[in-house]
Amino acid sequence: MRVAVDLAKASRLLNHGPTVLVVSAHANQRNVMAAAWNMPLDFAPPKVAVVIDKTAFSRGLIEASGEFVLAVPCAAQIDMVVDVGNSSGRDIDKFARWHIATEAAEKVAAPLIQGCLAWLECRIYPEPHIQQTYDLFLAEVVAAWAEDWAFKDGRWQEAPEPQRALHHLGGGNFFTSGGLLQSKVEG
Amino acid sequence: MRVAVDLAKASRLLNHGPTVLVVSAHANQRNVMAAAWNMPLDFAPPKVAVVIDKTAFSRGLIEASGEFVLAVPCAAQIDMVVDVGNSSGRDIDKFARWHIATEAAEKVAAPLIQGCLAWLECRIYPEPHIQQTYDLFLAEVVAAWAEDWAFKDGRWQEAPEPQRALHHLGGGNFFTSGGLLQSKVEG
Repeated sequence: MRVAVDLAKASRLLNHGPTVLVVSAHANQRNVMAAAWNMPLDFAPPKVAVVIDKTAFSRGLIEASGEFVLAVPCAAQIDMVVDVGNSSGRDIDKFARWHIATEAAEKVAAPLIQGCLAWLECRIYPEPHIQQTYDLFLAEVVAAWAEDWAFKDGRWQEAPEPQRALHHLGGGNFFTSGGLLQSKVEG
Repeated sequence: MRVAVDLAKASRLLNHGPTVLVVSAHANQRNVMAAAWNMPLDFAPPKVAVVIDKTAFSRGLIEASGEFVLAVPCAAQIDMVVDVGNSSGRDIDKFARWHIATEAAEKVAAPLIQGCLAWLECRIYPEPHIQQTYDLFLAEVVAAWAEDWAFKDGRWQEAPEPQRALHHLGGGNFFTSGGLLQSKVEG
């Protein structure tokens, strides 16, 4: 079941470096792309950083709306993730091609994609110089969600392979999030 | 054996989202800290982004030298990684405490830490506004290295658990990089 994640723990949704889907919407258009280049940027308020190329159709929707959703997909969605990363929303409706089901987000217009493990609703900090120079977008996380079996008590849980996060190596090859390992040193 | 990585492939060393060690040196001081919040920023020239808190001893060394090394540690180093992330170089010599062996880097003063899987030598792009506002450092990768058995033909290889990369979940808990998974969709 999808449950709200305490914003103080939202950075942990991306802390392990998963590839994410970036979902955007503006006026009557919406799009989804994949992004391995994302990371948390702060705890409170939670912030994120993500790279969105100038050529991406999503870029225009994100700049126009000032918002996006980052969704953490799982191994069961691998083919969709690779395809939405390699195709353009200018040419096709990716939601229709992959029969992507969505739910309304709480605070932004971009929707939440069903079947993912977690979702971060984000509102951009306007930083035109670094957006233009580095294709880098910084944003505040204004709402966060996770499947309660995947992320519990502020921590990701070990899961069967189809429900593990994806870590992109390049060219459609991924590592899945592997086994849990705990340090003997105080964390 | 440590071999040079083609700079055109250097972004792939961080593409899967591993926790890294940030190594810094200035004048007669050096330090090492852990950073889960890192990501590639561009392919050519390769660029990276990493968050370095204002309270970190490393921050002063990095700002003074304009350089750092990102090293990708493995599961065998988990206790050292957690401890250098939780202690300060103001109080202790972390290299001495953990008997960390180093080799000279090629283009920067900060050293390469032995036992890691890969290393990126980085030179900062001066962006004082975002360094100050977001604790965010952007840098060009000027040299890159990897163990030849870990990263081959521009791609990470599956490895036994002690040689897998670490993905920090919080509080000293990690996922290791898991099994390889390939999409049926053209990558």
